[in-house]
Amino acid sequence: MEGVRIVNREIQLVKRPETVPTHEHLSITDAELPKPQEGELSVELLYVSVDPYMRGRMNNTKSYVAPFQLNEPISGGVVAQVKESKAEPFTTGDIVTGSIPWREKTVISADSVRKVDPTLGSVTTSLGILGMPGLTAYFGLIDIGKPKEGETLVVSGAAGAVGSTVVQIGKIFGCRVVGIAGSDEKTSYLTNELGADAAINYKTQNVAAALQDACPSGVDIYFDNVGGEIADRVYPLLNKFARITQCGAIASYNVPNDQGPRIQMHLIKSSATIKGFVVGDYQVRYKEGFDHLSKWLKDGKLTYEETIHEGFENIPDAFFGLFKGSNTGKQLVKIADPR
Amino acid sequence: MEGVRIVNREIQLVKRPETVPTHEHLSITDAELPKPQEGELSVELLYVSVDPYMRGRMNNTKSYVAPFQLNEPISGGVVAQVKESKAEPFTTGDIVTGSIPWREKTVISADSVRKVDPTLGSVTTSLGILGMPGLTAYFGLIDIGKPKEGETLVVSGAAGAVGSTVVQIGKIFGCRVVGIAGSDEKTSYLTNELGADAAINYKTQNVAAALQDACPSGVDIYFDNVGGEIADRVYPLLNKFARITQCGAIASYNVPNDQGPRIQMHLIKSSATIKGFVVGDYQVRYKEGFDHLSKWLKDGKLTYEETIHEGFENIPDAFFGLFKGSNTGKQLVKIADPR
Repeated sequence: MEGVRIVNREIQLVKRPETVPTHEHLSITDAELPKPQEGELSVELLYVSVDPYMRGRMNNTKSYVAPFQLNEPISGGVVAQVKESKAEPFTTGDIVTGSIPWREKTVISADSVRKVDPTLGSVTTSLGILGMPGLTAYFGLIDIGKPKEGETLVVSGAAGAVGSTVVQIGKIFGCRVVGIAGSDEKTSYLTNELGADAAINYKTQNVAAALQDACPSGVDIYFDNVGGEIADRVYPLLNKFARITQCGAIASYNVPNDQGPRIQMHLIKSSATIKGFVVGDYQVRYKEGFDHLSKWLKDGKLTYEETIHEGFENIPDAFFGLFKGSNTGKQLVKIADPR
Repeated sequence: MEGVRIVNREIQLVKRPETVPTHEHLSITDAELPKPQEGELSVELLYVSVDPYMRGRMNNTKSYVAPFQLNEPISGGVVAQVKESKAEPFTTGDIVTGSIPWREKTVISADSVRKVDPTLGSVTTSLGILGMPGLTAYFGLIDIGKPKEGETLVVSGAAGAVGSTVVQIGKIFGCRVVGIAGSDEKTSYLTNELGADAAINYKTQNVAAALQDACPSGVDIYFDNVGGEIADRVYPLLNKFARITQCGAIASYNVPNDQGPRIQMHLIKSSATIKGFVVGDYQVRYKEGFDHLSKWLKDGKLTYEETIHEGFENIPDAFFGLFKGSNTGKQLVKIADPR
């Protein structure tokens, strides 16, 4: 590819975090902008999604996705606009989504993105309720949680992009839904706007006691986004044949060798199942998920919230904020308006 | 029931153990021997089974079986002989098995036992390979582990009653089987007599390194009888979509608030499943299990070992020995010969 130096920026991983990621680990750097070759697109970022799973890619360990390379740009979910196309069926002006580098203007292989139809609603839904977080909520709850009417579903990280969708799908299936989140604004959002039957503020309440109050018939399904001490409080309440969807463990992401009570005896006592998963495991069933989520959204059975920061240079802070619980719903950064 | 005082003994729980059970928690006490009423049998113990799960019943906490009551006899799996029957179809001399009190001679409801046909082999198999431990191995491996040819199966507590059966069923299904046990005699037994592909002595070897050597293609199935630090070493080796049968956690039974590394991230990275279970969950399928185990036993594909102590007064020590790993195969105590 022929390089042409213009004003362009990218965000690189320059140091691997041992614990909490900070500005010392990410660097905003000048970037080149080559011309697109056959099969490529030149695109400009509109929205960047920051997601907790990206923390795992900052470690140099084998996981379900390859680690980010040092002194290379971070990549993740974005919405972008095509500026120049050398690949059918894309044309200039198209809105696309995919997982591509955090670089303001970039040249990508056309098969790393798909078109978004902006007439169907906000293009940002492709990063949220109709994207990876929505599908994560759908398959994690339906396929692993197997919700049945009248069962009690506990959701941690309940006000986040995934959790807030799980809460609502749980209500669609007739569960008693108890959400756990980290502020009174979030717990109000859960009960007043998402229909949760109860919500617990883990920063101000005694979680064990509050869970016992909120789950008088025990816990049948635990959709776990956080792990750590919150999970410790849920395990003792598991009913016979309980299902735990292990979607995330954000409480452990920044804690090397995190220790806690061993959980095997809880699983034996209740004949419970814990299943870890990543949404990519369900790729062959994405259409099923999209269809359900789109229909529920259209029917007003699902709603969503977005926390949107602005400016390419503010992507790192938006990412760091995930670990402080600063977002409600999907955390995005807006880079530019479509033109 | 009309009581008649004769020489008879029972073993009572007199104090609940906080950690390791010892003689201060169990007491051998004189017992009455009532006459059987309608629907009852008078029986004399021949063999008593001591099993790790019984430790859980010594705690005063809700579990899958009710706790033992203080100053009441322990009950568990036994083989006994009918001395007097007031219940069809039992007659004097019948050999029976069931879960009944640890009392040399006792009167029981006839529906708490079933007949054993002594012409089919040793009556002790009803407490081992053709009893609860055999069925536990069968359902835990088949239903949760879902073994497939060429997969790697790791078994902890591999020389015990359950583990030794799991090792052999794993070989029947064509798995590479790696057993973990606590002495060189046991590891030799695993590889030389049970057909394990590799065996690890966790007391003398570096378990993490030995597992890595023994599992060059990672771990697809982990049949876990012990939990604790051995399980900690297995989790990092889990392959994508690995299955863990959480059968026991003997390393935690005597350790209140046992702590260890949190495991949620291992589950997410490998999309692995852990399922706790107790054999009673499979009651409606016991016949399937018996049929397979009996056939494999008859065909010489399954073998078993028993560690047999003698004397009613030695039951407590046989039970305590389970937590020191003193048994190979099924730990029994012989009380009397059939007459």
